[in-house]
Amino acid sequence: MTAGALLRLIRTGAARSRADLVSLTGAPRSTISARVEQLLGANLVYEGGSGSSRGGRPPTLLAFNSTAGHVLAVDLGATSVKVALTDLAGTFLAARSQELSIAAGPEPVLQVVNGLADELLAEVGSDATTVSAVGVGVPGPVEFATGRLVHPPLMSGWHDFAVPSAFARFTCPVYVDNDVNVIAAGELGSGGSSRDENFLVVKIGTGIGCGIVVGGQVYRGSQGCAGDIGHIYVPSPEVTICRCGNENCLESIAGGAALARKAADRGLAVHSVRDLVNLALLGEPPALELVRDAGREVGGVLASLVNIFNPSRIVLVGSVAEAGNPLLAGIREVVYRRSLPLAARSLEISVSDRGKVDGQLGAARLAIESLLDDDRIDAQLDAAG
Amino acid sequence: MTAGALLRLIRTGAARSRADLVSLTGAPRSTISARVEQLLGANLVYEGGSGSSRGGRPPTLLAFNSTAGHVLAVDLGATSVKVALTDLAGTFLAARSQELSIAAGPEPVLQVVNGLADELLAEVGSDATTVSAVGVGVPGPVEFATGRLVHPPLMSGWHDFAVPSAFARFTCPVYVDNDVNVIAAGELGSGGSSRDENFLVVKIGTGIGCGIVVGGQVYRGSQGCAGDIGHIYVPSPEVTICRCGNENCLESIAGGAALARKAADRGLAVHSVRDLVNLALLGEPPALELVRDAGREVGGVLASLVNIFNPSRIVLVGSVAEAGNPLLAGIREVVYRRSLPLAARSLEISVSDRGKVDGQLGAARLAIESLLDDDRIDAQLDAAG
Repeated sequence: MTAGALLRLIRTGAARSRADLVSLTGAPRSTISARVEQLLGANLVYEGGSGSSRGGRPPTLLAFNSTAGHVLAVDLGATSVKVALTDLAGTFLAARSQELSIAAGPEPVLQVVNGLADELLAEVGSDATTVSAVGVGVPGPVEFATGRLVHPPLMSGWHDFAVPSAFARFTCPVYVDNDVNVIAAGELGSGGSSRDENFLVVKIGTGIGCGIVVGGQVYRGSQGCAGDIGHIYVPSPEVTICRCGNENCLESIAGGAALARKAADRGLAVHSVRDLVNLALLGEPPALELVRDAGREVGGVLASLVNIFNPSRIVLVGSVAEAGNPLLAGIREVVYRRSLPLAARSLEISVSDRGKVDGQLGAARLAIESLLDDDRIDAQLDAAG
Repeated sequence: MTAGALLRLIRTGAARSRADLVSLTGAPRSTISARVEQLLGANLVYEGGSGSSRGGRPPTLLAFNSTAGHVLAVDLGATSVKVALTDLAGTFLAARSQELSIAAGPEPVLQVVNGLADELLAEVGSDATTVSAVGVGVPGPVEFATGRLVHPPLMSGWHDFAVPSAFARFTCPVYVDNDVNVIAAGELGSGGSSRDENFLVVKIGTGIGCGIVVGGQVYRGSQGCAGDIGHIYVPSPEVTICRCGNENCLESIAGGAALARKAADRGLAVHSVRDLVNLALLGEPPALELVRDAGREVGGVLASLVNIFNPSRIVLVGSVAEAGNPLLAGIREVVYRRSLPLAARSLEISVSDRGKVDGQLGAARLAIESLLDDDRIDAQLDAAG
């Protein structure tokens, strides 16, 4: 049981004293005491107050020092930038947003982000030196190890741009990931979820993508592009050419742009997928039918994902997911019919009930969990002696 | 850097002295020394000989004590049982096998296994008390946490049987997993592969299944049934009913039984998939065509898996995989056409070049890596004080 693992138990509230740590881990009290001293010395934990006694001296309480630094959480969307300042527990201290097209390119967009960051730091009476980590979500594929964009279709001018370079003045780690992995990080909650939890976050918007959580951590694959389910082949009597050049990709059949086009073809008065979703929410039969059909197509791919991954739950997000029940009905119909009974038995499928804050919260969590990762904390404390 | 992690570095040969451990981990010498003392105390590591000096006193060499216990490796196949005794490095000390139908049921089969185990222990001049772990591979779905079979189609009479109960006399941990996960464990190699490695082992035999390795560990999913790709829906102009009751499962179209049936329908003189594979190896055009078509069907599912998982390599095993090139050609044709370029760029697809020993080696590795898992070693040493 390492110091990093003990910090996690304290952060999540599972342990509130040395005695709790001893009983949760089974490690000897001397080991626990030594490692707690390391955490106290690094200012990651503080002592305060007394717990209730079970006979004998009441235990000194331990708590995570969430004020030890600030986190800058940046959510870059297709048409807006959102920036928040949080503490190390992910609690929002201040937040700003601004309409801005991501296609303006990296320099102008990140200049705006840095300007908003300075406003937020001033608002809380602080400055750049207190920022311990930066988390950034972007609407495109990114090489996680370097924070570099890789041919992002919606982000013209960003290919090969290394996002961390724009935050060099903070002299702290900068973590960059695609939007759906960032939302998955947000779903993990404070301190990470259970180490045993395996779940999927599926974004159905203009594009379709999937964030994969394995063992309580976001799984990114060998080149960092795991979860790209939008370009899986979907059988269909008609041939649809996807913007990637292949035939019958899921995205070209059930993505937001495809749905808006199909709706227009059927004579519905829609200019975007959002209009279509609004019609579905109003109960218009042709809109409901289009959304439910899209759900069936997505469900076919998710059924394979369920057989492959055996997740405990699937959370749906994105503009098409906001249609709710008709989409869910289509997905569930196919997933429960086509998945292994053992895998489907306790599977939950739901639409995320979080608001628009997801991207920022996720970016904050991405930064916090990466910064306070067990191995990273252990290495830091080992290096300190 | 915990004692368990240091043991891994020593086991894999990455570190041969305390100085190596210091330079590999960046941890202070005092920390390394204390943890090496724990490993020496637990008899997991021994000191011996001197390394070459780079000026100053030559370092004392450290080595993993692979003789600290025996491992019983059991490979239960459909028609045979194979049992081996290995040391803690997975080196075979003795091995026996016997023809026996798995459908004979758990008691008779496991009685034979225990008899063979006693013969092996006698052969090396030892007894049951030296067995540190048992690893068992079975040809059916198993709940990993309990070692209990779950409706195994080929293993009549085994449903809900807890395999570890048959090895209670060894008073050591017993690890049970399905055959393809066991083969994946074998592919991981001694000490586990790189913690960054993500790969798939795909078995194409009578059934079709997939072992998933994430971050250097076998991934089992929430109910332990991850990787069941045999029942993924495959589009086809004809409808084929699978033994599971669903339509057009991959296994019902490209599995060994389906191929043997198709071959017979085309007038080939085959009684089993092995006959068909032999004809393909002899270059018979209709057999080559059937195998290549099966490769294309499997390739369609693997293309999805590549987009989802972004593995670095895929290893094919099983009776159909033994056909080699025609199967590979069909698979590669579809995978490279239908996968994301970034995911396919450095993907290797190959047929396993290991012999029939895979199942036993895998069962041994499963047991060894579970027994010497970092967290398990740390907990054991912590408990020892």
